[in-house]
Amino acid sequence: MKVVSISHIWREELRASLGPDVDYITADPDDEAAVADAISDAEILVTTKFDAAMSAHTRSLKLLVCPSAGTEGIDRAHLPRGVDVINGQGHEIPIAEYVIGTLVALRQKLLQADKALRDGRWEFGFLGPGGFVGELWGSRLGLVGFGRIGKEIVPRAAAFGMTTAALTMHPEKAANSITGLARIGDLKNADEVDELCSRSDAIVLCCELSDRTRGLIDARRLSLMPPNALIVNISRGPVADEEALYEALRDGAIAGAALDVWYDYPQTKGERTFPSRFPFSELDNVIMTPHSSGWTEGHWRRKRARMAEVINTFARKGRLPQ
Amino acid sequence: MKVVSISHIWREELRASLGPDVDYITADPDDEAAVADAISDAEILVTTKFDAAMSAHTRSLKLLVCPSAGTEGIDRAHLPRGVDVINGQGHEIPIAEYVIGTLVALRQKLLQADKALRDGRWEFGFLGPGGFVGELWGSRLGLVGFGRIGKEIVPRAAAFGMTTAALTMHPEKAANSITGLARIGDLKNADEVDELCSRSDAIVLCCELSDRTRGLIDARRLSLMPPNALIVNISRGPVADEEALYEALRDGAIAGAALDVWYDYPQTKGERTFPSRFPFSELDNVIMTPHSSGWTEGHWRRKRARMAEVINTFARKGRLPQ
Repeated sequence: MKVVSISHIWREELRASLGPDVDYITADPDDEAAVADAISDAEILVTTKFDAAMSAHTRSLKLLVCPSAGTEGIDRAHLPRGVDVINGQGHEIPIAEYVIGTLVALRQKLLQADKALRDGRWEFGFLGPGGFVGELWGSRLGLVGFGRIGKEIVPRAAAFGMTTAALTMHPEKAANSITGLARIGDLKNADEVDELCSRSDAIVLCCELSDRTRGLIDARRLSLMPPNALIVNISRGPVADEEALYEALRDGAIAGAALDVWYDYPQTKGERTFPSRFPFSELDNVIMTPHSSGWTEGHWRRKRARMAEVINTFARKGRLPQ
Repeated sequence: MKVVSISHIWREELRASLGPDVDYITADPDDEAAVADAISDAEILVTTKFDAAMSAHTRSLKLLVCPSAGTEGIDRAHLPRGVDVINGQGHEIPIAEYVIGTLVALRQKLLQADKALRDGRWEFGFLGPGGFVGELWGSRLGLVGFGRIGKEIVPRAAAFGMTTAALTMHPEKAANSITGLARIGDLKNADEVDELCSRSDAIVLCCELSDRTRGLIDARRLSLMPPNALIVNISRGPVADEEALYEALRDGAIAGAALDVWYDYPQTKGERTFPSRFPFSELDNVIMTPHSSGWTEGHWRRKRARMAEVINTFARKGRLPQ
């Protein structure tokens, strides 16, 4: 079966894991003509981008493997009928670790405490003017989205004495039997989103970016949150309104945020790029990371194994793995 | 029953929780004559310090309540026979949160990533030169000490997919039935300490400071640790040899450390004090916090309730709570 990768990242790294039923080629994603040529007889395409122009070139496409978890780069309206999209897995473990770790870091004021102590100033605790730091124990976590990442967060939050409520686009499909999960609600219901915001001590954005979730956390919803509320965004930047989020953090309307996903990205690797048109970097109640939370060796191994399993099974049996 | 507090911190905060059987007075801990006078007929003493001079003044002492968990300020050799020391509780929850949170922060390189991104540099992840960050999943945690704090760490580490081995001064008393606890060993056995160092991806120092534990983590033991090893110290600074720890971190012999306890402390609140004679502040693989990890409102409530319960029960019934 003809498998074509036009991924920037998954090129040779995938080849060694593919079986004898796979005829694997790669094309430079920045070379439009090469891509058009390569995808014309691709049966499985490995890519994070798919649009109308690419669709016009495909003739044999049966399956699209998107290495990232977010599939917002895939224009499903132009996907040939019957073509499934399989998205990336394997990063849910480090991302769940990041979520709990940054919540602790924000409550413990790690970054401020570290910066001060490097200057000889004992800012928090019984020795400092800042007094108490915070704890997670007994607090309420709200998940906006309940896919693989959300399901990894729940048991970790439970071990920290948190109760979790989660909203999902498909509440009818969600199993409500995870320890520490208090409630599953409907992400399509605006009232339920409002309620999650007003009743959570911390909100994690872990949904897909779509027309429905873009700007979901806006100025009004930020104003519903308690003043001690934290936000962790490991979804896509625009799920939270850029200006409203900046202003809520600047004004102390919420207590803090850990942001791993952003509004402006480097066009080329290594290019100096401020991640927002607003100066988040001036705020000391924010932890800013470069879309790195899932990028571990473990994620890479797990993702490669899963992608190879999907491709090899489809090539050999014409269906997805069970 | 006559209860005297000479604690710097627990003075009026305790009074409202004490029952009618308690005659409670406080004395300024910095006023030697007032302390000598106040403790002369104290039956219960609330203090983090007790020495030979104080012992000479006590005539009725039956119980010593030490608000801190560490009792290294209590000279047990000069404690009248039969006087129990009850140490502080309630901070084990936020300290356990700090341990896991800082391990995530160190593996995810949160502080370096944040600092770089504030300057527009995408340092880690698929967009940056730093590449992979790390994860806790599947790694081995070693606890030096297995008291209340250690017991709170184990289930949290287990939820993060870590297996824990713990050393304690009293292995014969320790229950080995906590999920995620692989092994309990003897902290008095030097070979077992060596083995824990060489076989752990992260070491947490959560023991008492005593003659036996002072300098326990020395240059030789640091050299036994794998290069990816992390250390979290929430015990007392001198459990790790100051110079050896600094050099191991500076030279990359170990990967990083989160240090909440130190070698030099402010003599008065607010006094600018560098926490070590070595420039830990020049190292970017260290998280430096000001002995603040346990200092939360929750800890305060739990500690006050527990201290009041101990004092009220002892005053009423002449024995400790069950």
